[in-house]
Amino acid sequence: MRDVSIIGIGQTKVDEHWDRSLRHLAGDAVLAALRDAGAETVDALYVGNMLSGLLTGQEHLGALIADFCGLRGIEAVKVEAACGSGAAALRQGYAAVAGGLHDLVVVCGVEKMTDTVNAETTTGLVMAADADYESIHGITFVGINALLMRRYMYEYGAKHADFANFAIVAHQNAVTNPNAIFSSPITADQFSKARMIADPINLLDSSGIADGAAAVVLCPSGIARDGGGRSVHIRASSVATDAVAVHDRRDPLWLSAVEVSANKAYQQAQVGPREIDLFELHDAFTIMSALSLEAAGFAERGKGVWLAEAGEIALAGKIPMATMGGLKARGHPVGATGVYQVVEVVQQLRGQAGPNQVPNARLGMAQNIGGSGATVITHILEASD
Amino acid sequence: MRDVSIIGIGQTKVDEHWDRSLRHLAGDAVLAALRDAGAETVDALYVGNMLSGLLTGQEHLGALIADFCGLRGIEAVKVEAACGSGAAALRQGYAAVAGGLHDLVVVCGVEKMTDTVNAETTTGLVMAADADYESIHGITFVGINALLMRRYMYEYGAKHADFANFAIVAHQNAVTNPNAIFSSPITADQFSKARMIADPINLLDSSGIADGAAAVVLCPSGIARDGGGRSVHIRASSVATDAVAVHDRRDPLWLSAVEVSANKAYQQAQVGPREIDLFELHDAFTIMSALSLEAAGFAERGKGVWLAEAGEIALAGKIPMATMGGLKARGHPVGATGVYQVVEVVQQLRGQAGPNQVPNARLGMAQNIGGSGATVITHILEASD
Repeated sequence: MRDVSIIGIGQTKVDEHWDRSLRHLAGDAVLAALRDAGAETVDALYVGNMLSGLLTGQEHLGALIADFCGLRGIEAVKVEAACGSGAAALRQGYAAVAGGLHDLVVVCGVEKMTDTVNAETTTGLVMAADADYESIHGITFVGINALLMRRYMYEYGAKHADFANFAIVAHQNAVTNPNAIFSSPITADQFSKARMIADPINLLDSSGIADGAAAVVLCPSGIARDGGGRSVHIRASSVATDAVAVHDRRDPLWLSAVEVSANKAYQQAQVGPREIDLFELHDAFTIMSALSLEAAGFAERGKGVWLAEAGEIALAGKIPMATMGGLKARGHPVGATGVYQVVEVVQQLRGQAGPNQVPNARLGMAQNIGGSGATVITHILEASD
Repeated sequence: MRDVSIIGIGQTKVDEHWDRSLRHLAGDAVLAALRDAGAETVDALYVGNMLSGLLTGQEHLGALIADFCGLRGIEAVKVEAACGSGAAALRQGYAAVAGGLHDLVVVCGVEKMTDTVNAETTTGLVMAADADYESIHGITFVGINALLMRRYMYEYGAKHADFANFAIVAHQNAVTNPNAIFSSPITADQFSKARMIADPINLLDSSGIADGAAAVVLCPSGIARDGGGRSVHIRASSVATDAVAVHDRRDPLWLSAVEVSANKAYQQAQVGPREIDLFELHDAFTIMSALSLEAAGFAERGKGVWLAEAGEIALAGKIPMATMGGLKARGHPVGATGVYQVVEVVQQLRGQAGPNQVPNARLGMAQNIGGSGATVITHILEASD
């Protein structure tokens, strides 16, 4: 298979875009990525999206967005894996280029969550869980994560305040990211006093629901026009799954799909967690950060939360995360998130992250999760020389 | 890229499955396909589905179905292209095997339309159209097809009765397909007197909404275990798109994505329409059959409807279609349809179609359409020697 590189990136600000429809958001991101790549057209479009049907009454986003971007006629399709839809679409684009099906493709993650047609956003998000065995009992998606967090605190003796730094670091990094929805820093006191959503998860444990779109252009590394360190090599792409319902897993506190997906990626890239310079993980809730750090090999079991405590996740720390604000503060337009993560890793590896730059970033990992750990897509990216 | 073969097929009866959930239907088809292929596990699962979110409150079908089928942990994802979702999923599976990403994958199309949670089926189907510029005016998906049919009749002087044979042939073929939802033949008189749905489309112009699932197992042709002519070679796989909104197309009566998709497939397979022994086309409405036959090169512009009149679409005709009942009478569980079409072509090319067998079938084409011609996926399959 061929090596694949990212040669263009684009993104909209994550926000409540009351004046922009789903296709406008996607168009902004796709056209920005094409401009960045110096490409006028592509062979195919892969769209990551979770909620457009339920929330905006629109499926069939592949053809719709291709046409709106002036790409009428090309191969185009939507890919869905709940909150992991963005990276799942990237995975399909990667497969097409690596396998020789296409030479130039664009991948777009897009979500519009502030306008709703057929149901509310909470009804939408719980579709990531098991409808027949979880949601039917009335639990929300936040509720499922709250059960995990409560169990984590019970098993490992962590207090709610111990999770504070995940949110504080994310907000701090978002202050200097013009594309982030939340531009205010928060304090530990604010974190502790934030209003409760689903005990023990409060507002500041939770990522922000919003609208947004991000896009990347892919081509074989052999023909990537390397305009001065701008192209970024995809060293690894991997997917693993687990039971959707948390009660069906052997150990609710061990995200085995994170472990398998990360290990596959380490193997493909021939690196280990120590060599990763930054990790854009799926911090939809602070508990997911702790669990992801453990299963991906950055902390021992039950110790993930202490990485935040120790300050190792800051830009100058041992394993910087949420470097542009993460899901928590850049925002989490669910089907777009996986592509935002990768766009941000590219910014870091190009040295274009401005005040958020991780020093000497050469190898970045992005991990996008569908549901509470049921689909996990990992990409490892490397700066060009 | 590697040649790809289909080495296993599975399907449920298309029906109102009030006692089977979405995962049960998918499981039945996937496990049947694995048994047929003699495989116990696979590397990846690609699920084609359009409506599970809106109708059953469940997204994230990749991980969900993989787990239910005893395949927990494998790569799994859902692919959506409206009513073309099934073949769009096959396209992703094909790309993965042809490109060398995986050696053994299963593709499953599944739809459950009889139980609805968040909205009615009609609300669901119109998500294949343009929400902002078509559906917002209140038109249904049948209504859009009715406008096309009315225009066709006006432009080409066809009468409603001229479309009868598309439905009559489909129902005739469904009588001897145990997996078809409609097992009764119909007459020209019944066709003309059927109750109106959206003028001029009546009940017998329309495919049947239902539940169902179908699956195929793919592997490289080089390692297909050919159990006596059972493996079928994918000679071509192609996708083309068009504007989603019909009013955005230069010529509403010319399905340009059908033309481009079919021509790409002919080119890849190095054949022309004359060499195709059967054509499983997207007969969601009789008008779509006429338009597809024209744009795919089987009839001249404005002459598609006369192929039905001339009896050339029957099992012993020049271009047999809907050989197992088609969307019209086997039934149209939308996201599953594209996989059903391919399963049926495999049955024909294996010589396993029983009373529905097309004599000497060597080369079969399946074409699955999303929306009223906006996403068109074509596969050409060839019998093994």
